[in-house]
Amino acid sequence: MVGGGQLARMTHQAAIALGQTLRVLAADADDPAAQVSPDVVIGSHTSLDDLRRVATGADALTFDHEHVPTELLEKLVAEGVNVAPPPEALVHAQDKLVMRRRLEALGAPVPRYAAVESPDAIDAVDAFARRVDGPLVVKAVRGGYDGRGVRMADDLAQAREIAGQFLDSGVPVLVEERVSMRRELSALVARSPFGQGAAWPVVQTVQRDGICVLVIAPAPALPADLGAGAQQLALRLAAELGVVGVLAVELFETTDGAILINELAMRPHNSGHWTMDGARTSQFEQHLRAVLDYPLGDTDATVPVTVMANVLGAVQTPTMTVDERLHHLFARMPEARVHLYGKGERPGRKIGHVNFLGHFDSGDVTRLANLRERAELAAHWLSHGQWTDGWDPHG
Amino acid sequence: MVGGGQLARMTHQAAIALGQTLRVLAADADDPAAQVSPDVVIGSHTSLDDLRRVATGADALTFDHEHVPTELLEKLVAEGVNVAPPPEALVHAQDKLVMRRRLEALGAPVPRYAAVESPDAIDAVDAFARRVDGPLVVKAVRGGYDGRGVRMADDLAQAREIAGQFLDSGVPVLVEERVSMRRELSALVARSPFGQGAAWPVVQTVQRDGICVLVIAPAPALPADLGAGAQQLALRLAAELGVVGVLAVELFETTDGAILINELAMRPHNSGHWTMDGARTSQFEQHLRAVLDYPLGDTDATVPVTVMANVLGAVQTPTMTVDERLHHLFARMPEARVHLYGKGERPGRKIGHVNFLGHFDSGDVTRLANLRERAELAAHWLSHGQWTDGWDPHG
Repeated sequence: MVGGGQLARMTHQAAIALGQTLRVLAADADDPAAQVSPDVVIGSHTSLDDLRRVATGADALTFDHEHVPTELLEKLVAEGVNVAPPPEALVHAQDKLVMRRRLEALGAPVPRYAAVESPDAIDAVDAFARRVDGPLVVKAVRGGYDGRGVRMADDLAQAREIAGQFLDSGVPVLVEERVSMRRELSALVARSPFGQGAAWPVVQTVQRDGICVLVIAPAPALPADLGAGAQQLALRLAAELGVVGVLAVELFETTDGAILINELAMRPHNSGHWTMDGARTSQFEQHLRAVLDYPLGDTDATVPVTVMANVLGAVQTPTMTVDERLHHLFARMPEARVHLYGKGERPGRKIGHVNFLGHFDSGDVTRLANLRERAELAAHWLSHGQWTDGWDPHG
Repeated sequence: MVGGGQLARMTHQAAIALGQTLRVLAADADDPAAQVSPDVVIGSHTSLDDLRRVATGADALTFDHEHVPTELLEKLVAEGVNVAPPPEALVHAQDKLVMRRRLEALGAPVPRYAAVESPDAIDAVDAFARRVDGPLVVKAVRGGYDGRGVRMADDLAQAREIAGQFLDSGVPVLVEERVSMRRELSALVARSPFGQGAAWPVVQTVQRDGICVLVIAPAPALPADLGAGAQQLALRLAAELGVVGVLAVELFETTDGAILINELAMRPHNSGHWTMDGARTSQFEQHLRAVLDYPLGDTDATVPVTVMANVLGAVQTPTMTVDERLHHLFARMPEARVHLYGKGERPGRKIGHVNFLGHFDSGDVTRLANLRERAELAAHWLSHGQWTDGWDPHG
């Protein structure tokens, strides 16, 4: 696996159960996955030699991020490496413009957008803004994640300014209508090279400052046809794009009850972390099964509701160590399922997540609100060393 | 953790989620845990120097087996190592005679037995056989596991002969009544040094040739008072013996509805493998939490029924590789939760296990029988490369 982050770390956990070991290409021996796997290649994902080193002898080469240049992957494929997902699929998760054009060609629902590929084409923003007549989003076509490379614009002048900044630094942009949405959803599926597909229940994702902070599985009160439609759409895209492994289709549920595709990711995804404790097959095991061309696992939920909350590094690092905070969390909430990544704390950085399982009907609004609050309390405590509800362990 | 077997392997999986790495003392770089952890000390569990090496800098020293000599552990404790469980507790899982005498002193229910500690005391077998007037079991006091060191005797002559063999090789024995039993149970608990205890639901274990082959969680149709009594007993023993970590209390449920203690183990135990997929907190995470003195996790089952079946090496190793067998298993049973240990195949050797989850009332005899059959089919397939129900994947 290229990349030594938390996704590789958790993939190694899953690999152990399958009798496998995950070899990791990590930038640093202290990376989350490099801390826990015995088979680590230290190197860069932009170095062909390093990529060759990690691929040698492996059954397949896969990724914990989207940043490996396509041309390097094409060279590896030409040399006989089993790259999964293959570069011609992966490019749709690397380049938002390639993705949008392909989705349009496939008739998949996407927000209206305009592409601006060079500074001298910036007037295209004006024409698009007139057509949309509403707030806009400006997105760098490549290189963004966790909200980076995505900027909100309230009016045309701001949109032009943001687009101009990206374009002047050599990055093409998409200018996009800001969709009037009810909420964000994610349809997570996996596809094997054999062509088998499997879909988990569609979930609701909650973002803050462009970063996913919370996932509710399944998405509460999602109309059955909308959920099934999103799953079908994701499975169809996985097949059309030739995905091998996990595909996350990030969606907007619009105020008029439709779904639109926001982004694609071709790897285990934050919106699937709930599957580690709440589904029969976790996304990490499923990604491995797909990449290694095993038959896929059962994607049913094991409990009616799972809430996942991300633990993000705080602006001010707490005086208590993570370990001490974990002690206190476990003392208050013995039911919390905690996953830590072994990362240093930096503001906004994902350093872990917690899963909370609900044994009640997913339509029970009150109990769901309680479970969600508990998950958020736990995540906030692990981040900040503060209980936002005034809890006093000695009180 | 001393020992590089499958228990250490699965403990490393659990350690990853807690932001930890498990350091392992393994006999061989190819041991199950040594394959998957980056922090491996190659050495012997009977070498004080090797034990020191693995303990240096660790928060605690714990075990995946019972074979470390007590006197070495006492030296380590004297040197300041945090040995968990401490040797004065662990000895009850190492020496069956020490265990039995202590349990008797505590008033805990045990089968009738006689101790024979030297060849010249062998006539004690006769006196005991007359008292019991029924079939006997002869057990080596130390060194047995998975049925080794335990032999059945149908009459006095056979009991004397078996006891004599052990005694002549310098191993004291217990001669024990063969209990008239309905089935075997296991009460699994954990205890932290702080004194907190937590009990999982009591399970039924099924042995074949002295090896556990199947676990049903919870034990079907177990009277509530018997189950609660077994949990209370196990928690009390954990406290009285000063256990730190997981304690498995292997029990007989007698035909007249009582429980008797058979054996103790102070480590993650085969009867707790179901917790990896069927309980909120797995025994491996719980063992770490106890050993590191974290508050313990919730031991509730996440699904009504879990059936665990061990995958044992076959007498005749199948022509298909384990990997090919795994492919076929996944193709037929996408719901199987598989855990492989990365071990070479030898007859009767535990090379993995499978968990099957049941979303039905645990009193539903028909569905339970189906789930159990499915788990046994899966385990037999992985062991032998044969479907015992005549399944033809191409049929």
